[in-house]
Amino acid sequence: MILPAAEWDVALQELIAWLRFASVSADPAYRHDVLACAAYTADLMAHYGLSVTRVETPGNPVIIGTWHGAPQAPTVLIYGHYDVQPPDPVALWHHGPFEPVIQDGQLIARGASDNKGQIFCHLKAIEYGLRTTGTLPVNVTVIIEGEEETGSVHLPDVLRSYRDTLTADIALVSDTPMLAENRPSLCTSLRGLVYIELTLTTLSGDLHSGQHGGAVPNAIGALVTLLSQFKDSHQRVTIPGFYEGVRPIRAERSAEIAALGFNADTYAASIGARELLGERGFHPYEQRWYRPTFDINGLWGGYTLEGEKTVIPAQAHAKVSMRLVADQDPDTIIASFGRAIEAMTPSYCQVSWHVCSKAHPAVVDPHHPAVTAAMTGLQQAFGVTPVFQGEGGTIPIVAEFKRLLGLDTVLMGLNLPEDRIHAPNEQMSLANIQRGIAASMGFLEAYGKTPD
Amino acid sequence: MILPAAEWDVALQELIAWLRFASVSADPAYRHDVLACAAYTADLMAHYGLSVTRVETPGNPVIIGTWHGAPQAPTVLIYGHYDVQPPDPVALWHHGPFEPVIQDGQLIARGASDNKGQIFCHLKAIEYGLRTTGTLPVNVTVIIEGEEETGSVHLPDVLRSYRDTLTADIALVSDTPMLAENRPSLCTSLRGLVYIELTLTTLSGDLHSGQHGGAVPNAIGALVTLLSQFKDSHQRVTIPGFYEGVRPIRAERSAEIAALGFNADTYAASIGARELLGERGFHPYEQRWYRPTFDINGLWGGYTLEGEKTVIPAQAHAKVSMRLVADQDPDTIIASFGRAIEAMTPSYCQVSWHVCSKAHPAVVDPHHPAVTAAMTGLQQAFGVTPVFQGEGGTIPIVAEFKRLLGLDTVLMGLNLPEDRIHAPNEQMSLANIQRGIAASMGFLEAYGKTPD
Repeated sequence: MILPAAEWDVALQELIAWLRFASVSADPAYRHDVLACAAYTADLMAHYGLSVTRVETPGNPVIIGTWHGAPQAPTVLIYGHYDVQPPDPVALWHHGPFEPVIQDGQLIARGASDNKGQIFCHLKAIEYGLRTTGTLPVNVTVIIEGEEETGSVHLPDVLRSYRDTLTADIALVSDTPMLAENRPSLCTSLRGLVYIELTLTTLSGDLHSGQHGGAVPNAIGALVTLLSQFKDSHQRVTIPGFYEGVRPIRAERSAEIAALGFNADTYAASIGARELLGERGFHPYEQRWYRPTFDINGLWGGYTLEGEKTVIPAQAHAKVSMRLVADQDPDTIIASFGRAIEAMTPSYCQVSWHVCSKAHPAVVDPHHPAVTAAMTGLQQAFGVTPVFQGEGGTIPIVAEFKRLLGLDTVLMGLNLPEDRIHAPNEQMSLANIQRGIAASMGFLEAYGKTPD
Repeated sequence: MILPAAEWDVALQELIAWLRFASVSADPAYRHDVLACAAYTADLMAHYGLSVTRVETPGNPVIIGTWHGAPQAPTVLIYGHYDVQPPDPVALWHHGPFEPVIQDGQLIARGASDNKGQIFCHLKAIEYGLRTTGTLPVNVTVIIEGEEETGSVHLPDVLRSYRDTLTADIALVSDTPMLAENRPSLCTSLRGLVYIELTLTTLSGDLHSGQHGGAVPNAIGALVTLLSQFKDSHQRVTIPGFYEGVRPIRAERSAEIAALGFNADTYAASIGARELLGERGFHPYEQRWYRPTFDINGLWGGYTLEGEKTVIPAQAHAKVSMRLVADQDPDTIIASFGRAIEAMTPSYCQVSWHVCSKAHPAVVDPHHPAVTAAMTGLQQAFGVTPVFQGEGGTIPIVAEFKRLLGLDTVLMGLNLPEDRIHAPNEQMSLANIQRGIAASMGFLEAYGKTPD
């Protein structure tokens, strides 16, 4: 059900207050805001009727809230994160990234979709149910962490330590998008990730490009040459062994994609691309969901400020990442990357690199009863039959739920692909927040009726 | 002659005061410091006995000082610049770049060698001569500008407007290094320069590398592929027509180089390079002095702060420069670069670029009488016979002196190659400042005795 108007106004203000925290986990400069956000998260969950535990970690706190008042019913472990991506480039935001505004039916702020807006739908569904009926159709455990955007490095230890508290029948995550507006979907796969930072050094210090230019190795020159070799002309990754273990795309998946009515021109126009560019021989959805990637996420070196400086840079840096699919193993890929870098780096360069984060890919059984219950919830909220889709992004913890807690995960996306997550002017539509709350209520109800 | 100790102490304090101005011309944030430095420069020159004119330009002021009290003697136009390179990376300086310190016989500050320290030698030689004898062996006109590090864009107009004031028999510039410590040299060529900034765009905004990665063009990926193609495996520049007009290296130049006793291992060790890297088939001095180059001076795009951000960057930027040799023409090279960029940029990219600055290469006649007088001055000051050398750097105005004023230029370097100009911890040795003053005195004396 859609919340009554007065209830909705209160809910929206509670969400907006949450979005005001600049809970950026990637940059230590935001540490204070992250901790303040953790405290607000715990308060909100307690206020909503959950029994709350704040778990300290070597990084950011994890907040666990439980309502286990239905001993005969199944238990759902609902996961989300209160940390957000860095807001830069800040200049491209139309309003402050942490000063939420409502415009044209959109709630605009860093974290609006990823992930505060989406996890809020479940929190509000729980709150409304407990407040108005005193009970819920299922038991719920909500776990909200603060390090998803930096690889959830401390969460696995929390899962191990709190295994008893976290015992459940299914996990539920809303951190993926719907296929499109009014096209709700359930996601059957997530890609994994390896994120690496590397530095090339060719000199002990920057040199004058006039006095020395022509005779000495330029670190940026070396880095562009190195990185230009990681993909061939068919956009295939050249790291030896990279595609070993990649599952062929099943006919069932290709049929689902064919039924989705993808239009390449519309997609290219929506992202402002003159042309798409992907691995030859695959559909863009296949490229995004079921094929691994190599991307340069950042690169810098030499003089990058205004005007000119005639230096030969001594060092150059890059951040690169690879999205992985089943059954690629992050550690195997890291080892292959390391061997490739060693082989490709010229003898005049010194190379150093380290892994910033890694995550396994994950797959979901589309026939699981909780997936069926989620279909029901989405159908009721949106009035449309959901479809299955893959997802190119990574939710590191989904593979860990399976490995450490034995849990399958329902991936019920509530936001839209155009919501600019990780980019300036991130948003979530008010309609999807309202329907997301309704879909969560519907899911809890339907799953509570699942026969054992 | 070397200055007496008491005179030297005063001189050093006057130079240090000059070095305290953060007269960075490349960055508008330093505009106030640049103007304050211009005022100090004018005051110093007037205090030293010159008649001073401050010439305003659309950019930074040019200071002209004259002493024309020897009507029968020739006139020397002495050129220098009071602007300096940006100090970044500031973190690599052991002291503040504009807080000069003296350590182990070195004066350390941005501008110590390039160019305040060197032009100061001539100013002090003039001051000492005028103060102690009331006259000079030749007429002098000193012109000190504030835009050398950004291409001297407004100086040619000043040369045209003040042509009468600037009439002279020879120009003298100390803005190149000696060959090595105790190895004074006169420079017979300078390279030219084209400096370009370019931007590639592939998307209207950054995208999430998970949701979209694999199907869309990455601007940094495109930029590294583009820039990796500008040199072949022999380190030759691949721009079609780039080497047209490049003069073959004369046997006289190669013989001079052979006599200099260059040691590649020593050179590599001095710059912290594992190996040298230059155009195949040329001596490192030939590569640095007589062959053109293509270097990437800066590159940036995507996420470059701490931690990780999984973006596909929509834009990537680079600063690139080409050093030119006689008889390459900057405008011809710019046109060739433009055609190459058009041809090499893939259809999924939008490219934009602009020229930041350009300068012609220059050559000097080693048999000019003023060059001979400079040999005498250096010989007296250093007690060593100077050698001839080329110089890889660019002094844009030298070609303009020839073109606009009909003047040849003596290039009398006074600092050392290891002085880290354009880099952190720039320095000039106290010994070279003292000898530079003596060399200037000796030059003025010897040139005054040149028969008509």
